[in-house]
Amino acid sequence: MVTLKQLAKELNVSISTVSKALNNSEEIGEDTVKRVKELAELYNYKPNKVALSLKNNKTKTIGVIIPNILNRFLAKVLFGIEREATKHGYNIITCISNESLEKEKESLQLLANGSVDGFILSVAEESQVNNEVEHFKRTIKQGLPIVMFDRVAHDVMCDKVIVDDFDATYNATKSLIEEGRKHIVFVSNINDISVGKLRERGYNKAILENGSIEPAVLKIKKKDDHQKKIKTFFKKNKSVDAIIAADSSSGVIALNTALSFGLKVPKDISVIGFASKSDSNHTLPKLTTIRQHAKVIGAQAAELLIKRIQNTGVEEDVKTKIVKTSLVKNNSTL
Amino acid sequence: MVTLKQLAKELNVSISTVSKALNNSEEIGEDTVKRVKELAELYNYKPNKVALSLKNNKTKTIGVIIPNILNRFLAKVLFGIEREATKHGYNIITCISNESLEKEKESLQLLANGSVDGFILSVAEESQVNNEVEHFKRTIKQGLPIVMFDRVAHDVMCDKVIVDDFDATYNATKSLIEEGRKHIVFVSNINDISVGKLRERGYNKAILENGSIEPAVLKIKKKDDHQKKIKTFFKKNKSVDAIIAADSSSGVIALNTALSFGLKVPKDISVIGFASKSDSNHTLPKLTTIRQHAKVIGAQAAELLIKRIQNTGVEEDVKTKIVKTSLVKNNSTL
Repeated sequence: MVTLKQLAKELNVSISTVSKALNNSEEIGEDTVKRVKELAELYNYKPNKVALSLKNNKTKTIGVIIPNILNRFLAKVLFGIEREATKHGYNIITCISNESLEKEKESLQLLANGSVDGFILSVAEESQVNNEVEHFKRTIKQGLPIVMFDRVAHDVMCDKVIVDDFDATYNATKSLIEEGRKHIVFVSNINDISVGKLRERGYNKAILENGSIEPAVLKIKKKDDHQKKIKTFFKKNKSVDAIIAADSSSGVIALNTALSFGLKVPKDISVIGFASKSDSNHTLPKLTTIRQHAKVIGAQAAELLIKRIQNTGVEEDVKTKIVKTSLVKNNSTL
Repeated sequence: MVTLKQLAKELNVSISTVSKALNNSEEIGEDTVKRVKELAELYNYKPNKVALSLKNNKTKTIGVIIPNILNRFLAKVLFGIEREATKHGYNIITCISNESLEKEKESLQLLANGSVDGFILSVAEESQVNNEVEHFKRTIKQGLPIVMFDRVAHDVMCDKVIVDDFDATYNATKSLIEEGRKHIVFVSNINDISVGKLRERGYNKAILENGSIEPAVLKIKKKDDHQKKIKTFFKKNKSVDAIIAADSSSGVIALNTALSFGLKVPKDISVIGFASKSDSNHTLPKLTTIRQHAKVIGAQAAELLIKRIQNTGVEEDVKTKIVKTSLVKNNSTL
């Protein structure tokens, strides 16, 4: 790649003359402008984007920081962000924090130095546990807006897009109560993160409101054998007639385990899972699911950030958008 | 954030003096160096990484271009790249090409301008179909090495990490023949991409070598109802006694469909899927799977690229590494 310096040398003018000529500056004579442009074209000169971004401070690029790329929900949000950003002519650059506070800080620093105009992120587990938010505040102060989604830091003043996790399990549990189910079990392998806790609370509220049903929660840890844990639970609790799962795997496994015990789904037992369309295709009968609309969440986050970037300097209140889940009934419930 | 300019102004010296002092240049007196460093520390001055990268041309950052972030295999490779890169002190920045040639080109350009030291990528479907490789060659010529994985462009001279797709299905099909299966069906929803074709050829070779079994292939298109398509096929082909699936969903769905028809797995029918450990947990009995070791692929790609970056200028032959799949037997086969 040819540089400004090489062009200047060949034309026997200063670098600044070449730069001004390429930018059609009035300080430079028409003749020189023509000579510079012709040589630049001949050598297929392209201005260095990084150098440009240092100068005019707009990159038309959004930085996204994702805690865990193996989480299907987060991957889908990323997909939604990408699609919406592209529509508005923005590129996206993604870093993975791997649930680590240190990595999250590093990613912010890496991209905050001129590579992006702002950030969309979901907070790493470690940052949530330690309630660490200074790095976010510093980035915003530096003039780079942040939009948080799903796992948000309430102490940071910025735009947010969240899911109605509490209402989602509250409503789903109520629908199981309305079916006449008497022994409704909540199964979860995401007890450690904020959304997992919200989902459990939603379930608990619906159960307590009813009054005549005992709450029953099966918590699965990362090191557990997921299938075995659910099998053992079924063996010990023959009267279970409904399962509501906080994550996608637990719903699928619970349904298949019920079938393997000779139970009829949904005659003997109903199953609802927090899961995607493709998960519900992985069971027979198809799993009734609480859908999170991950792509919509991504699109809304991108829209909020782009607006914020384009209105830099304009004081505006921060917004929190709630993307409601839907209960998509399939044949695993009555 | 304080800049070099502000430091210079406050100290009443030139910007270049501040810069040289911070870099311990011998041109600057000890006293000045001390004064500059103290003020820089007071203001918590951090050198602009982008500006630095323009200067010394090393970013310690790897650019990754992924065709589709919703593809679980690709997401896992990304995870492996990230982990290995972190070990070596490298950051990674990811762009998504969304299977589009145009986006792939844009992502290369976006990051090639000073943000990264090299690339790891899997070729977008559109680039593969059009056999477009010029943008890769240009990037390499520019001095930025590329390592390709899984979907590679054979016409580009660069390091590659690939999977033994052909051998994987060849061996798995042979194991089904050895079980004594007579009606072995190959199911695939990835006919359009190179690896899908390789997997089909591996199956075909094993079937043809045997001679007494008829090949039978069920192709599922993106717009198809995956479950319905497999159900219909089972209804029409009662004698099917083994399924080998080219993708993760088809294996899971075929197994559950067989169970729903009252077939015993693996007594009446064996099922093997190209799938992950978590997929095999989604069926009961657990699915026998061809595992791709996606994280290993990512780690090897990162290792190859980092070596290449650190040996810039050294002429070395390009390498192609093959990461062998393993057939992990579970209870869906005899």
